[in-house]
Amino acid sequence: MSTQVKTQKLTQYGDIVQLIGPRERDVLIQLEPGKSLHTHAGVLQHDDLVDCVWGNQIKSHLGKTFYILKPALDDLLRNVDRKTQIMYPKDIAYILVTMGISHGARVIEAGTGSGAFTIALAYAVGPEGQIYSYERRPEMQAVARKNLEKIGLDDRVVFRSIDIEDGFEDQDAEALFLDLPNPEDYIPQVRAALEPGGFFGAILPTTNQVERLLLALKANNFAFIEVSEILHRYYKPVASRLRPSDRMNGHTGYLIFARPLTT
Amino acid sequence: MSTQVKTQKLTQYGDIVQLIGPRERDVLIQLEPGKSLHTHAGVLQHDDLVDCVWGNQIKSHLGKTFYILKPALDDLLRNVDRKTQIMYPKDIAYILVTMGISHGARVIEAGTGSGAFTIALAYAVGPEGQIYSYERRPEMQAVARKNLEKIGLDDRVVFRSIDIEDGFEDQDAEALFLDLPNPEDYIPQVRAALEPGGFFGAILPTTNQVERLLLALKANNFAFIEVSEILHRYYKPVASRLRPSDRMNGHTGYLIFARPLTT
Amino acid sequence: MSTQVKTQKLTQYGDIVQLIGPRERDVLIQLEPGKSLHTHAGVLQHDDLVDCVWGNQIKSHLGKTFYILKPALDDLLRNVDRKTQIMYPKDIAYILVTMGISHGARVIEAGTGSGAFTIALAYAVGPEGQIYSYERRPEMQAVARKNLEKIGLDDRVVFRSIDIEDGFEDQDAEALFLDLPNPEDYIPQVRAALEPGGFFGAILPTTNQVERLLLALKANNFAFIEVSEILHRYYKPVASRLRPSDRMNGHTGYLIFARPLTT
Amino acid sequence: MSTQVKTQKLTQYGDIVQLIGPRERDVLIQLEPGKSLHTHAGVLQHDDLVDCVWGNQIKSHLGKTFYILKPALDDLLRNVDRKTQIMYPKDIAYILVTMGISHGARVIEAGTGSGAFTIALAYAVGPEGQIYSYERRPEMQAVARKNLEKIGLDDRVVFRSIDIEDGFEDQDAEALFLDLPNPEDYIPQVRAALEPGGFFGAILPTTNQVERLLLALKANNFAFIEVSEILHRYYKPVASRLRPSDRMNGHTGYLIFARPLTT
Repeated sequence: MSTQVKTQKLTQYGDIVQLIGPRERDVLIQLEPGKSLHTHAGVLQHDDLVDCVWGNQIKSHLGKTFYILKPALDDLLRNVDRKTQIMYPKDIAYILVTMGISHGARVIEAGTGSGAFTIALAYAVGPEGQIYSYERRPEMQAVARKNLEKIGLDDRVVFRSIDIEDGFEDQDAEALFLDLPNPEDYIPQVRAALEPGGFFGAILPTTNQVERLLLALKANNFAFIEVSEILHRYYKPVASRLRPSDRMNGHTGYLIFARPLTT
Repeated sequence: MSTQVKTQKLTQYGDIVQLIGPRERDVLIQLEPGKSLHTHAGVLQHDDLVDCVWGNQIKSHLGKTFYILKPALDDLLRNVDRKTQIMYPKDIAYILVTMGISHGARVIEAGTGSGAFTIALAYAVGPEGQIYSYERRPEMQAVARKNLEKIGLDDRVVFRSIDIEDGFEDQDAEALFLDLPNPEDYIPQVRAALEPGGFFGAILPTTNQVERLLLALKANNFAFIEVSEILHRYYKPVASRLRPSDRMNGHTGYLIFARPLTT
Repeated sequence: MSTQVKTQKLTQYGDIVQLIGPRERDVLIQLEPGKSLHTHAGVLQHDDLVDCVWGNQIKSHLGKTFYILKPALDDLLRNVDRKTQIMYPKDIAYILVTMGISHGARVIEAGTGSGAFTIALAYAVGPEGQIYSYERRPEMQAVARKNLEKIGLDDRVVFRSIDIEDGFEDQDAEALFLDLPNPEDYIPQVRAALEPGGFFGAILPTTNQVERLLLALKANNFAFIEVSEILHRYYKPVASRLRPSDRMNGHTGYLIFARPLTT
Repeated sequence: MSTQVKTQKLTQYGDIVQLIGPRERDVLIQLEPGKSLHTHAGVLQHDDLVDCVWGNQIKSHLGKTFYILKPALDDLLRNVDRKTQIMYPKDIAYILVTMGISHGARVIEAGTGSGAFTIALAYAVGPEGQIYSYERRPEMQAVARKNLEKIGLDDRVVFRSIDIEDGFEDQDAEALFLDLPNPEDYIPQVRAALEPGGFFGAILPTTNQVERLLLALKANNFAFIEVSEILHRYYKPVASRLRPSDRMNGHTGYLIFARPLTT
């Protein structure tokens, strides 16, 4: 009882496509009729990139080979136009799993920043989920919105350019994440916006900030408080000389999770 | 333009519920009519646990307080009946994000083991995704199937009790993960089952195994090979005495990712 | 021009000897005439352990084999009778090298605690060095003194049972190390006891303590301030299944170094 | 009973002096009569640098302030003229402590390389110790010899430009360290040169090398085999924003220790 070979999915206009050319250099584009892409290894016509089997090769006008691949979240994030420090896949991945953020979830985040984590959230909740992203700097949120539009994920996000000092406009979120320097100032507002037992999370670079947030979480009766950090160590992938890379990222941020309980 | 407060979601029969009693001890149950749960802190009737607001409290017959929470993936995994070493959330999270495994994905894994990673996959792909899980030991797969049935995720998984030595029965997977001691023996089979440019991943405890897999991946023309490991360090969440925990998990496994390209 | 084979050094009364018996279990003793050692693997006479070649074997009265080895610092530390948390070789080693503590050095430490670090200091400075060890609890210092006497290093140490609140009695130390919960309270006293440009060091378990010490060091015009931590990861030493150990020590303490400059 | 203030030690000709000028830039020099030092912050006369209190300040001809400090081992190593990858203080420190290398020890090393570890050994064994350093490339050993001469430690080292394939010329070493790509090829030679129960150590960058060395050590009946690695993580030393540095050294080498027992 083997499964039918399903009809091979082909690329189409509107798809986000990762093109990988010589020396594993990559670029992400959204396929549009009539457009062309100029690279160091030659020109590619978007029209030649539709109706292709994912993973196949195509040649540029200079005869250079490009692979047409589906981008993973990681690839989407590396291509974000960034005005602010953005989160790393190692942290994003652990946050999503720990906070139960998957298809259909209703999630609040603040602040939006460059929108990299907004992309991760929109990607994770799927077409039936909903993200509410708060940012008090409108010009920053405009950058983020553009980053989401480029990859067609903006329709899963409601952007709100308001200061959360006055509270969130949305309620009953299943998860709420703060990527702000002073999350300790907004814990009552968080409590009002999260459903009981919902997941709260934050990322903070310094120990002083973690200490202040812990005080605020205790004061507001949050439970299951967890503080941790994720270290990601790459190896040189050579079979006969396997070893860790010389340099690694020494720190991104401390991750803090907690859940508000009814009292 | 604030959002409507949506109708509060209530617990219902069939839901997987996490009950957290005194001293933060927790248990996972699926709500069924007429059933009762016996704990060290007293008895709870399933019938009293439906139509409850998530996050609310309920009392046992001894008057002890229990919270009714939605389990996160992490909670589901900690409750797996395990016959084999299971993967950790830190690794699972990074694997899912790196391999692009989200709603609607079509994923192959081998071997099934106790089904912990199968749960993670089924959870991540949502109701429209599909997991094909291979395991040559039928009795082991029976354990896994029960673990998935307990939390109602078994309908997203096709279990196959065959030896992948002879090839996978399924094709055009977007992602394929091997949790086996000798993945290097099945790379041609992996290539035949993955769609071009799809995501291959494996986890291996020893450096010797990594070296062998790297050789096989090179020999079979895989590209974008990445080897890394994730270290997760917990802190004692006390504001006035913040510090890492005394003991940490020193190793789970090396993560290897690669993508087959057409030649 | 090869070197003469020097006369083989032999064990003698007064030596600290490490005996390693069946299953690599070890014990440290100081050889004394007429004494005997009772172990689970039989009795050994001290008199049979003198005039032996280091590294040789000897049999207990039950015929079990014991090796006679020279203990390394690590072995000496593992045998300390400890009333307090003691420092680890990974940290001790880095402290000694960073603070320039070697033969002939004149070093102050506070507090003495169980004397484990005192042993490391006395070992490092050799017979011509001098350690001044401060501890306000006389009963604790008595434990430490006994630990140093057991291995014959007590003559390199001056023990002082006074509170350093009132200042150190000794001056012009080349290095001064504080292993106390509140080093920030004694920085002027440290400055008065260290020679200009000397090496100051401390170990602290929590981030809050590090923050307070940094403030005090800045306020007292210390330069070359360094904060770091040392992580030590063991591997299972099996050639065909090389991998890190499952469990590792997640934290001992943060190391802080600085040097007082004249102003 | 306070200690006499000992006569303040003053700088003299022949001393290795660390001068720290504006913006914490440092230089190491050996004081010689009549010499002058040219820096970006002006000229200093060696003759003005003798009979100074360690830690004091002196002005260049441009009026810039320099501190006169005693260098620690770390400083000596950073100033090594290096033709090869050199070892880090984190590793050197742990090696010295684990292998019992302190005042008076008799130690063999191969290969010499740029002499950085030779400096560490010479520094640790003091004036009564003895280092035998082997290197088959004479031109490399010449570089090392110069590095030791510069800081006046060359008289503690016997340099031997021979291939250890044919065995070491020296015997009864208390400790023997190999910093070579293929230590597994010389284990019988190591055994012949170490005293029974002596300390063997090696550092190796790749897992493949570690696996091969473990095989050779087992085959030659070494005991107490330990494999580990030391990770050193720096923090930004700012009291109000304490956090790990962004970048860290991801790998230097695996440390392997073992002791030969008589059979």
